[in-house]
Amino acid sequence: MRTVYLDNHSGRPLDERVYESMLPYLKDIYGNAQSMHSLGAQAKDALEKARGQVAGLIKARPDEVCFTSCGSEANNLAIKGVTQAKADKGKHLIVSEIEHVSVLSAARRLERAGYEITTLPVDRHGLVDPDDLKKALRPDTILVSIQHANPEIGTIQDIAALCRIAHDRGKLFHTDAVSTCGIIETDTAQLGVDLLSLSGSQIYGPRGAAALYVKKGVRVIPQIEGGIQENNRRAGSENMPAYVGLGWAADIALQEMSRNREYVIRLRDRLIAELPRRIEHIYLNGHPEKRLPDNVNFSVEFIEGEGMLLFLDGQNIYVTSGSACTSKNLKMSHVLAAIKLDTAVAQGSVTMTLSKYNTDADVDLVLAEFPGIVKKLRDMSPLYAYFLKTGKRQEAGPGTDYDHDYDPDAGDNACEP
Amino acid sequence: MRTVYLDNHSGRPLDERVYESMLPYLKDIYGNAQSMHSLGAQAKDALEKARGQVAGLIKARPDEVCFTSCGSEANNLAIKGVTQAKADKGKHLIVSEIEHVSVLSAARRLERAGYEITTLPVDRHGLVDPDDLKKALRPDTILVSIQHANPEIGTIQDIAALCRIAHDRGKLFHTDAVSTCGIIETDTAQLGVDLLSLSGSQIYGPRGAAALYVKKGVRVIPQIEGGIQENNRRAGSENMPAYVGLGWAADIALQEMSRNREYVIRLRDRLIAELPRRIEHIYLNGHPEKRLPDNVNFSVEFIEGEGMLLFLDGQNIYVTSGSACTSKNLKMSHVLAAIKLDTAVAQGSVTMTLSKYNTDADVDLVLAEFPGIVKKLRDMSPLYAYFLKTGKRQEAGPGTDYDHDYDPDAGDNACEP
Repeated sequence: MRTVYLDNHSGRPLDERVYESMLPYLKDIYGNAQSMHSLGAQAKDALEKARGQVAGLIKARPDEVCFTSCGSEANNLAIKGVTQAKADKGKHLIVSEIEHVSVLSAARRLERAGYEITTLPVDRHGLVDPDDLKKALRPDTILVSIQHANPEIGTIQDIAALCRIAHDRGKLFHTDAVSTCGIIETDTAQLGVDLLSLSGSQIYGPRGAAALYVKKGVRVIPQIEGGIQENNRRAGSENMPAYVGLGWAADIALQEMSRNREYVIRLRDRLIAELPRRIEHIYLNGHPEKRLPDNVNFSVEFIEGEGMLLFLDGQNIYVTSGSACTSKNLKMSHVLAAIKLDTAVAQGSVTMTLSKYNTDADVDLVLAEFPGIVKKLRDMSPLYAYFLKTGKRQEAGPGTDYDHDYDPDAGDNACEP
Repeated sequence: MRTVYLDNHSGRPLDERVYESMLPYLKDIYGNAQSMHSLGAQAKDALEKARGQVAGLIKARPDEVCFTSCGSEANNLAIKGVTQAKADKGKHLIVSEIEHVSVLSAARRLERAGYEITTLPVDRHGLVDPDDLKKALRPDTILVSIQHANPEIGTIQDIAALCRIAHDRGKLFHTDAVSTCGIIETDTAQLGVDLLSLSGSQIYGPRGAAALYVKKGVRVIPQIEGGIQENNRRAGSENMPAYVGLGWAADIALQEMSRNREYVIRLRDRLIAELPRRIEHIYLNGHPEKRLPDNVNFSVEFIEGEGMLLFLDGQNIYVTSGSACTSKNLKMSHVLAAIKLDTAVAQGSVTMTLSKYNTDADVDLVLAEFPGIVKKLRDMSPLYAYFLKTGKRQEAGPGTDYDHDYDPDAGDNACEP
């Protein structure tokens, strides 16, 4: 049976060329880049080549690239590393409400240690209001951290503009670019950021390899301490096969970005245009234009994300509902809460993230299978039965503590034909 | 030309069987273990199988195994994670002088944050005196961290005895078992420890995979925060190929440990016995009996480690001088300083770490080449010229701040025939 993988924001298949690039470093080239002998030098050369390739993708200097083991580590290093380095300058941090859990958790940890965190709201499309940032900045602000794009709802922030606001006040700016790097432009000079996180598995590279861009002159306290690796920013013997793979993945992403972008946008737009033609009462989440080329997120009314996910799984169509790292946690996603989605609608949300390996036939299969699945689930749904009988929607049940000012039938999010 | 790799404590070649086990997870099985669909379940099954395999090696429960990206991360998580979790119980920590730099750096970080660190000395063989530990324990001690064996000088501590002392006072005990795990027994019940670090690349497994054993009931605050991975002890999408490889490496290590141990002990003992027969004025460092099966460390008088390393490199013989993670740092190793080696002698130290892939022919080549290299370096050495002329040793130069009570010609360390 055909397999349609649309859970790419949880990790993409490895590019065959990246795979090939890694094999020698798994097998024959096993030197430690810190060793002083020839095998060490051979590893060191490969490490620095990979660093240059990653730098190329984000238009940075190679020594501004600090390898880490995953995007969450890069985000933790940015948040904790900078605040620790500047602990004497203040204890205030600004993040947005829809950051990745690694940013929010790191911020929460600092909060427990006496820091103050300002969490910027987002509008119904997931955008941060630049004026909110202006108002939030304080003399004792150490760092602003706002995601380049949100992988769940796809909304892309205007990082360059937000960063300028922070810089006008002399504040450092970090962006989590895990879902944009290699997908859209992430030129660090153009964005203007001081720190930027990226991850291998999002650019068809390996698991176990990610990086934090740290602008020259910005100091971060290492969170994994010990050896002198990564210019004293991250200890531990280098994961050579993964870092080499990340380098090649960055190189390939750079060369093929515009072609891949156009390709997935076409697939994305087919899903966004055609699903609402086939399924009533479904609503696009996230920004209609400022949107990741590969992101589709719909709320499907009267049913739950879990049911859709499992029924689609039965057809070998793999999607997600909620953020990848917390998807086993069935609480409503903090992102959907932040855009003030009605709880009932948020529970029926589904994220499809496309990759360069998806095809029109994949989209065809989703369009063929998904409507029937929604029908089946709605046929079992008491909420839907109530709606059919009364023409009204039931109030959300107890335990929902979000605002209910969202009208799914109004505004840009409504995609019904 | 024949290659003789004796820098195994900087990372060992990957076992061919481990390599094969990883390939499917690089290529075809790309699901995220946290995803709720079938591909996620497939990854989750593989993850838990690997966790069970690692648990098997150290006789632990699978849920006591927390995967990390490297040994340094495991050590940082143990030291910082436990002290943070028990911050209200006290701010005193005990480590030994010859811990891995990741333990010492983590401790130093805590010291800057107001913790008190007691650093236990070691004797000339590198052993911690249990009485020193007894005296160092205080009511506000949170954690004792003592390495199972030191990879530079090979000395194995009696962790079970040291751990009992800590437990008698109700204190937690961590051991860095990166150089022992898979090489000698590391049964967590027998050792009695509460936390234990191990690393993939030391057991012929992959880079990018390591683990911290955390005894059931012991709480650690995650250092990489975000998702719920590793039972809320370490966030970030799992590095599946590496974790699967680590599992297989642990399984193979368990099955073949005793055979491999006997095999490398024989090679080690040939080097330890025969090098001093061929080279005058060389001294074995570390304990003569309580010693890693794979460790050889000699101080070669009148010359420098760097010279030996480079000349051996010219013969495709790869060794190290000082600790792997800091070997590009040419300061005298803190381990050699701790055993109070005379600086002049310490500068000429060389570590050879054997693996199951080394052979008698490798040992033969070292025995054939090394004496000539030492002779060549001594012929260029003013220290040696002075010794030949006067029969006396020159005082160590300025900048050496270690005690000079070490007589290389006396005691167990003297291996001259």
